[in-house]
Amino acid sequence: MQSLDPASHLARVRATTPLVHNLTNHVAMNTMANVLLALGASPAMVHAREEAAEFAALASALTLNIGTLSPHWLDAMDDAARAANAAGTPWVLDPVAVGATRFRREAGARLLALGPTTIRGNASEILALARQGGGGRGVDSTDTADSAERAAVTLALDSGAVVAVTGEVDLVTDGRRLARVAGGHALMPRVTTLGCALTGVVGAFLAAAEDPFEATVAALSAYAAAGETAGDSATGPGSFAVAFLDALYALDPAALATTPTGHARLELTDAP
Amino acid sequence: MQSLDPASHLARVRATTPLVHNLTNHVAMNTMANVLLALGASPAMVHAREEAAEFAALASALTLNIGTLSPHWLDAMDDAARAANAAGTPWVLDPVAVGATRFRREAGARLLALGPTTIRGNASEILALARQGGGGRGVDSTDTADSAERAAVTLALDSGAVVAVTGEVDLVTDGRRLARVAGGHALMPRVTTLGCALTGVVGAFLAAAEDPFEATVAALSAYAAAGETAGDSATGPGSFAVAFLDALYALDPAALATTPTGHARLELTDAP
Amino acid sequence: MQSLDPASHLARVRATTPLVHNLTNHVAMNTMANVLLALGASPAMVHAREEAAEFAALASALTLNIGTLSPHWLDAMDDAARAANAAGTPWVLDPVAVGATRFRREAGARLLALGPTTIRGNASEILALARQGGGGRGVDSTDTADSAERAAVTLALDSGAVVAVTGEVDLVTDGRRLARVAGGHALMPRVTTLGCALTGVVGAFLAAAEDPFEATVAALSAYAAAGETAGDSATGPGSFAVAFLDALYALDPAALATTPTGHARLELTDAP
Repeated sequence: MQSLDPASHLARVRATTPLVHNLTNHVAMNTMANVLLALGASPAMVHAREEAAEFAALASALTLNIGTLSPHWLDAMDDAARAANAAGTPWVLDPVAVGATRFRREAGARLLALGPTTIRGNASEILALARQGGGGRGVDSTDTADSAERAAVTLALDSGAVVAVTGEVDLVTDGRRLARVAGGHALMPRVTTLGCALTGVVGAFLAAAEDPFEATVAALSAYAAAGETAGDSATGPGSFAVAFLDALYALDPAALATTPTGHARLELTDAP
Repeated sequence: MQSLDPASHLARVRATTPLVHNLTNHVAMNTMANVLLALGASPAMVHAREEAAEFAALASALTLNIGTLSPHWLDAMDDAARAANAAGTPWVLDPVAVGATRFRREAGARLLALGPTTIRGNASEILALARQGGGGRGVDSTDTADSAERAAVTLALDSGAVVAVTGEVDLVTDGRRLARVAGGHALMPRVTTLGCALTGVVGAFLAAAEDPFEATVAALSAYAAAGETAGDSATGPGSFAVAFLDALYALDPAALATTPTGHARLELTDAP
Repeated sequence: MQSLDPASHLARVRATTPLVHNLTNHVAMNTMANVLLALGASPAMVHAREEAAEFAALASALTLNIGTLSPHWLDAMDDAARAANAAGTPWVLDPVAVGATRFRREAGARLLALGPTTIRGNASEILALARQGGGGRGVDSTDTADSAERAAVTLALDSGAVVAVTGEVDLVTDGRRLARVAGGHALMPRVTTLGCALTGVVGAFLAAAEDPFEATVAALSAYAAAGETAGDSATGPGSFAVAFLDALYALDPAALATTPTGHARLELTDAP
């Protein structure tokens, strides 16, 4: 684990320009496409059931986000996930607000059952999803960092997915290993769909790596480093969003060094 | 009415972070979410009929915008408005281009009949909606400021809604009181969906206030003040959009002072 | 042809503020609307089958983009194109990724058969569309600049449309005349949907001109000039997108001069 080197992951993304197929929400589409282009990946948004599976089989990674779901889109997501599985293509599940309505809980459980490579959400979403898919393992309903960590480990072990809980400090686990990624900036939650766009970035890193846990950690490290850089010049959420794309584009692998004085501080341990 | 204090309304929005549920058009979604986040509210876009009503009952305010409508979305808007009414949640109608096609005229009339708390549109839209829902009270078809004022008062009295006619100088009326809000900037109409996003801001202010007329006036005052600030540094519509989000985020309540020399000049009278 | 004067075309767009009706993809909508507003046109996005044809008959130009297609939208595009044809309104086809899936190939062929005024795509898209609609005229599958030129001329002659192949150097042909437009900036492909938004700009220029070939060339020239200006100040794709809107807004007709030292270098010849 000490060998986890986010910089080399970033270099592979830029060298391979992975085609990332996204069925994401309406709010996030433009932001996600710009984030992936700035990073050096190639985004595509294709959602019709008539072509989603066919396209997923062509892509290097797939990401599914239930933010502005409809039954048609959910069917297309199901098709696309099955096509990705058949092709051995990694895919990411972003269970936006999965606990909010019955429709979302069912959608989350249905997509979870298809076996995502990585699941990325905030603490509440991971807790809600763990409750749905975790078979009643007793995840606390109190939404603390501790309970999110326990939920993430449980969800990872139950689903076989890498689970990323993003927040002020991100947490990533495959049930065995656990990483914490610090960095980013306080303005990031004030810019819409930066979390959704991160899901696309995780897809790009998964496409360019062997180990999904390492790829997910590397993606979060790159994002956090770009966020710190952007925060240095931003005066509000508008200028932050602009600076963030510029920072992703210019991201210096050296900024991903894992030393305590580096930008994106990364801590690796065994899962509890 | 002399006590109308936009600054205290803004402070309440920021203190309560209202969850604003929006069924808005595809063009506006990202802009509206960023505007609401910059302001200090919490946006959510949820449009499927399978969950729109359930989600509306959880939200602090609801906004409906017919800009890129389809029959499915219209049904979901209807459901959501009924759920908001049942929960006593305020909601805003944004009748985009309501006069342009038969489908829009019918959609506008259908949603108007559900009793929005506030209606926000430009002069042409308010005139068209008043013609639909006003029972033939003889609103002039000539699209002057005067006729828009008469249409707004008529529409407010007929519908029970606060009516906001936004333009170079905004007009707000509940049929009894009338406010004019000056400010903003000439570049605002050159940035897409800033009007649509304002509808979300009205929702946020309604959620945090008792009096819908005062809340609507305060929302428009805050928007106009941020627009003036943004205009001070912008060199075109691209930089204006960025500066506008930064200005909303940093908006100083003192900028909302209603003195003639303040940023957002506010004039209150009785309706004619 | 020597008389082709992009500056006068731009002046006519600004003087007439054409209403451009767009059925475009979800990723592009916001960008396209901002680009058209910055330029001085009036964008509208209307996609429901219940109103698409009615609205197309009101507009000065129509643009159709298959980027995030669904069967419903395709039917609405078909309706809108027929209404535009009946009204003598020019319309543009943007065949995004037309070769990628069977659904797209069929959609591209169906819309092509309705007779667009201009087709705008990248080299791969024009090659794929020429293969679909060109009746097997032997377009090379090797995706070189030469083969794209041959495909464009063939497609123009077969379809009667002006064909624009955009890339580092754009190529426009009506089968008889051929123009090359240089300019733009290396960051343009790193900002999502600038190509899609250009399709809207072509629509605006078509609405304000007699000769579709000249209008298309003028649109591409204006876009390239704004791209060069934006590139002068941008430090990455985020700041480029902002500067590009400002540059379109401030675009000086003198920047469209066709001299070799001008911004948007334009070369006109006969088609081979």
